[in-house]
Amino acid sequence: MARPMTMTEKIFAAHAGLSEVSPGQLIKAKLDLVLGNDITAPPAIKEFEQISDKVFDKDKIVLVPDHFAPNKDIKSAEMAKAMREFARKHSITHYFEVGRMGIEHVLLPEQGLVAPGEVIIGADSHTCTYGAVGAFATGVGSTDMACAMATGETWFKVPASIKVELTGKLAKWVTGKDVILKLIGMIGVDGARYQSLEFAGAGVAALTMTDRLTIANMAIEAGAKNGIFPVDSITEQYLNGRVKHSYTPVAADPEAEYIRTVAINLSELTPVVALPHLPENVRPVCDIETTPINQVVIGSCTNGRIEDLAQAAAILDGRQVHEDVRAIIIPGSQDVYLEAIKLGYVEIFVKAGAVVSTPTCGPCLGGHMGILAKGERAVATTNRNFRGRMGHVDSEVYLASPVVAAASAVLGRIAGPEEVA
Amino acid sequence: MARPMTMTEKIFAAHAGLSEVSPGQLIKAKLDLVLGNDITAPPAIKEFEQISDKVFDKDKIVLVPDHFAPNKDIKSAEMAKAMREFARKHSITHYFEVGRMGIEHVLLPEQGLVAPGEVIIGADSHTCTYGAVGAFATGVGSTDMACAMATGETWFKVPASIKVELTGKLAKWVTGKDVILKLIGMIGVDGARYQSLEFAGAGVAALTMTDRLTIANMAIEAGAKNGIFPVDSITEQYLNGRVKHSYTPVAADPEAEYIRTVAINLSELTPVVALPHLPENVRPVCDIETTPINQVVIGSCTNGRIEDLAQAAAILDGRQVHEDVRAIIIPGSQDVYLEAIKLGYVEIFVKAGAVVSTPTCGPCLGGHMGILAKGERAVATTNRNFRGRMGHVDSEVYLASPVVAAASAVLGRIAGPEEVA
Repeated sequence: MARPMTMTEKIFAAHAGLSEVSPGQLIKAKLDLVLGNDITAPPAIKEFEQISDKVFDKDKIVLVPDHFAPNKDIKSAEMAKAMREFARKHSITHYFEVGRMGIEHVLLPEQGLVAPGEVIIGADSHTCTYGAVGAFATGVGSTDMACAMATGETWFKVPASIKVELTGKLAKWVTGKDVILKLIGMIGVDGARYQSLEFAGAGVAALTMTDRLTIANMAIEAGAKNGIFPVDSITEQYLNGRVKHSYTPVAADPEAEYIRTVAINLSELTPVVALPHLPENVRPVCDIETTPINQVVIGSCTNGRIEDLAQAAAILDGRQVHEDVRAIIIPGSQDVYLEAIKLGYVEIFVKAGAVVSTPTCGPCLGGHMGILAKGERAVATTNRNFRGRMGHVDSEVYLASPVVAAASAVLGRIAGPEEVA
Repeated sequence: MARPMTMTEKIFAAHAGLSEVSPGQLIKAKLDLVLGNDITAPPAIKEFEQISDKVFDKDKIVLVPDHFAPNKDIKSAEMAKAMREFARKHSITHYFEVGRMGIEHVLLPEQGLVAPGEVIIGADSHTCTYGAVGAFATGVGSTDMACAMATGETWFKVPASIKVELTGKLAKWVTGKDVILKLIGMIGVDGARYQSLEFAGAGVAALTMTDRLTIANMAIEAGAKNGIFPVDSITEQYLNGRVKHSYTPVAADPEAEYIRTVAINLSELTPVVALPHLPENVRPVCDIETTPINQVVIGSCTNGRIEDLAQAAAILDGRQVHEDVRAIIIPGSQDVYLEAIKLGYVEIFVKAGAVVSTPTCGPCLGGHMGILAKGERAVATTNRNFRGRMGHVDSEVYLASPVVAAASAVLGRIAGPEEVA
């Protein structure tokens, strides 16, 4: 009988054709999906063309122009064009053109392209998002993407796993973003370096898929190789109707070995903010002294889903964005955008004096759609607040949930929801 | 008794405190409004600060961050910041922050800031748009803007006038854009150099304000100093409820002298396209051979009003953007965007697979939000198709109405409305 295994170990064993794997072991795993975007795919395509003239499976490669699209300059237009031409040449099924796309990590779960038990790599660090549906998913470099597109497999060192034991239930206005920021605050940005964060415990059932997607998305911000959630009825409900292909969920063995357990009682959490310039600089919003802001960004692969916009709309409905603040709201996909129109959120945002952008990663990584000048300060629902991430090296990004971001937009300073709602 | 005068001459005489003026005469005129944007205002502010510490009238300066906003990079963020700080320092009444703005030449008429009989300068070539409401309006450089902000007046050489005699009525799917492109095709891009295009004749009454705004907007593309429309009941209806300040409309004297008359029978016009790389390269759409396209842009100060989006929506409703085309639709202001949501246009666009952007000049001048790569071709409702205007020096822009642009988006090639509707 095989040794008891964690979720990640089980998925790796199955994809490596082995009965068991152990942390530290080097394996070669078959890949269920290979992802690239308009920044990372073009160099991957160049590498690919050195080693192959045929992709391993035209249905298992996803290409999304989301980072600098609609193109912000000639260089980004040339990169998007290279990806587009590659997609046509190889008849890539899942190429999403501008206007029919979204931010990759919002789009793939939404479109049913990721499923439990799968191994997914993407040339983007937040590929770990798909752990929310019980897949092993991780970010790789463009060269790894190139080889993967040619061979359909890649090598991994099996990571050791940290169990994140969740109990309780989130209070109103407390979200998945607060959970993952809290965790990163507890263990640090290198607290899970090349380890798997495996979420577990009775608290999981109290988290929506949106919460889980946000939490898994930022596993990389604790240095984790991946973050992964158990597959439960909430997962199945989310996947139902979306995922058209067959898949095999796995569950961790009860006796699986973890190098560490971190316990979080969801009931005790409050809205938090990660101060510049690291996601681990986490403080309760209520402890932060008066901090005027210039910009609010609500969106990104971390918080660009319809439930995120619903939270922002609940705060902004009937209120005005502070006159000193530019509020930029970016639906994560065209489907999210359409839903937000139907539910009246877009109207609420525009009436409040906010920008509503077409789906794009935009300012999150300093691309476009709201870059900061020297000395400016933003509250953002994005995932990284590294120095200069959203613009000038002397600008500041405060990471928070859509709730805190919206409240801050109204008051013109970092603020919690209870101050406005 | 004064000599018979054109509209422009009468407005200049009134603003120069003279009983009459003649073409070629140098005058100093009082200004009713001075406009700048995020590209042109920052250098004007630097100049201003050399000569003055107080603006002539805080209510008569308009500052709009529309060209590279929401900011596309650090440089544009710094420029917007300089304009914002100037607006605060001088308590500028009409500073429009991101999220509460629009494209300047859509915004100013919409917000009732321009009125008949006024003299308006703006550090943007398409300031001539406001001739649609019977104002003298023209583009100036940043240095002129600087002096104007300090003194509230500037000098002009009185232009000679060309009478554009309009008769008849536009057929379905033929628009103001076709009228102005036709005119530019007839007289050339230097056909009205430093002259006033004064629109007249029974055909004026058959043109909507949106048509007139589009026509006046592109007067500069024929080299005109300004374009100007008579003030009639359609004008008054448009101004009613928008313009809160008093104004004095003028009408041309029956015996006014024109250096030339150009006659256009609106009933004879058909949808046209201006081929690269000059707005004067005008051809009927039906005469253009099969021309595949990569992008469609519907928006800009020329065609970003609600009626423009209505025309695009009528074509796109229930149809899909061609798979080879990125269709980018940019409402000209937050008010236009809100109206487009309420009328269901935004839903139509998203369902059709189009990008709907927040208001910005965007790709029109090669700024952001859809820049073209080498060899790419766009049909755009914008105003200039100069080489490299929308991106790579080897890209092409075909100017057309929202009707033609939307039809082309559906068919993936330059197409007229009758081919789809």
